[in-house]
Amino acid sequence: MKTVVIIGVGLIGGSMGIALKEKKIVSRVIGVDASSAHSAQALELGIVDEIMDLEEAVLQADLIVLAVPVDIAEKLLVQIMPLVKKQVIMDVGSTKTAVCNIASSFPNSGRFVATHPMWGTEFSGPAAAVKTAFAGKAVVICNKEKADTDALLMVEEIYRKLEMRLLYMKADAHDIHAAYVSHISHITSFALANTVLEKEKEDDAIFELASAGFESTVRLAKSNPEMWVPIFMQNKENVLDVLNEHISQLRKFKACLEKDNVEYLGALIQHANTIKRILK
Amino acid sequence: MKTVVIIGVGLIGGSMGIALKEKKIVSRVIGVDASSAHSAQALELGIVDEIMDLEEAVLQADLIVLAVPVDIAEKLLVQIMPLVKKQVIMDVGSTKTAVCNIASSFPNSGRFVATHPMWGTEFSGPAAAVKTAFAGKAVVICNKEKADTDALLMVEEIYRKLEMRLLYMKADAHDIHAAYVSHISHITSFALANTVLEKEKEDDAIFELASAGFESTVRLAKSNPEMWVPIFMQNKENVLDVLNEHISQLRKFKACLEKDNVEYLGALIQHANTIKRILK
Repeated sequence: MKTVVIIGVGLIGGSMGIALKEKKIVSRVIGVDASSAHSAQALELGIVDEIMDLEEAVLQADLIVLAVPVDIAEKLLVQIMPLVKKQVIMDVGSTKTAVCNIASSFPNSGRFVATHPMWGTEFSGPAAAVKTAFAGKAVVICNKEKADTDALLMVEEIYRKLEMRLLYMKADAHDIHAAYVSHISHITSFALANTVLEKEKEDDAIFELASAGFESTVRLAKSNPEMWVPIFMQNKENVLDVLNEHISQLRKFKACLEKDNVEYLGALIQHANTIKRILK
Repeated sequence: MKTVVIIGVGLIGGSMGIALKEKKIVSRVIGVDASSAHSAQALELGIVDEIMDLEEAVLQADLIVLAVPVDIAEKLLVQIMPLVKKQVIMDVGSTKTAVCNIASSFPNSGRFVATHPMWGTEFSGPAAAVKTAFAGKAVVICNKEKADTDALLMVEEIYRKLEMRLLYMKADAHDIHAAYVSHISHITSFALANTVLEKEKEDDAIFELASAGFESTVRLAKSNPEMWVPIFMQNKENVLDVLNEHISQLRKFKACLEKDNVEYLGALIQHANTIKRILK
């Protein structure tokens, strides 16, 4: 494969550009980004070989990687699909139902492959891109039966060369699972940060104490709203389900404390401990 | 200083034993532990030089380090204080009001120094002990005016040699702060684990997706109930205050999703982002 066009040269797109070049999966990386500052930075950092406008880039592409916030991905996909002939286009967003629905409304929908590499950090922009982003992580490919065979094969081969573990799901199943293993973690982290910031108004000393445990649970609260507001809105119903369950789990802890129910408190923690079998 | 007695040779006590020997702060480490398996393991790992019964060990000590769960610390302190003459005794527990109240009921209360090194992991037992545990972290010393001058100096010197940053607080202020920067993180992590485990009943595939963000927020859910139930119970009122605030912060996210209030959702996340100035 010769030319990849990466639309959105931030954390994910930028890391993808670096990895594709590093592993010699592509010979040429063209970047497209609405921010000229990010474009210049991506060039400087060697993440992309050149910067082009969207339409020109798409015409030169073998593969198009859509790596922008999920609301912008929706809009760009509508612009790009009519330009696509032999090219393959894949997205890397955190929600899949909305983008799959849009793709399927086009006659050439088989050129689109919906993917979600399960990697990210709380940082954003080209400077946050890292070459070791994807290896060893899982990637979900959604609705694979809707993709053209050659398009699917190209995307699978790329992710295999990036040393990712391929998983296949329906888009709606992906969105439910993502709400549980990713989206809710971000909401609890944002809410925890706001909880502590609320207190800080009264007392600055509190932060001298911040320990590794606190940093670990609050780290994701640094994630940016441009990326996360559209994710939460697109996956609203699933996120609300999980959030309601989470609030109800927190209320159990609250009830234990209010009623001095030491035994049930211990049982809740013991049950939580069984997460060990899932976490490494 | 010659002989330190470490009561409870687990994660914190064990790490303290290793660090005190490594930095040649003490010449002899005696371990006391209710578990003979842990005692044997601590000997094998070179965390302690010998194992003794409580009373015998206390008589030989220059410094006694109480490194057991906070409910057991209360009980042991009542046993140990009558045996203490010139020895210094310090605790390392996550709550400070209860233990300080007990110490102050003894005529020799000045021998006791209440401390909380702000370090820990989700693991426990001697095998979890690490020699790099404390360096660069904060340690809180509580109610220092109640300690004898020589006792306070000894403890301060030890923590300085362990390269910790010394902070001073009243015990009750410590417990409020600890609820915000440590205890609530554990409750949200336990509750998040239970939220996801609730879902897992229906669907195993969910865990193939678990990403770094999920692991980061749920890591603390591996922490053991023997340590955490007594912390939550001793610090019940503060933890309840923070938990109520946290649930109310989560409800704001819920309301945004239910009402499609995209602007306020963005504002909540932007506010959470300001935690950047506190986290490294």
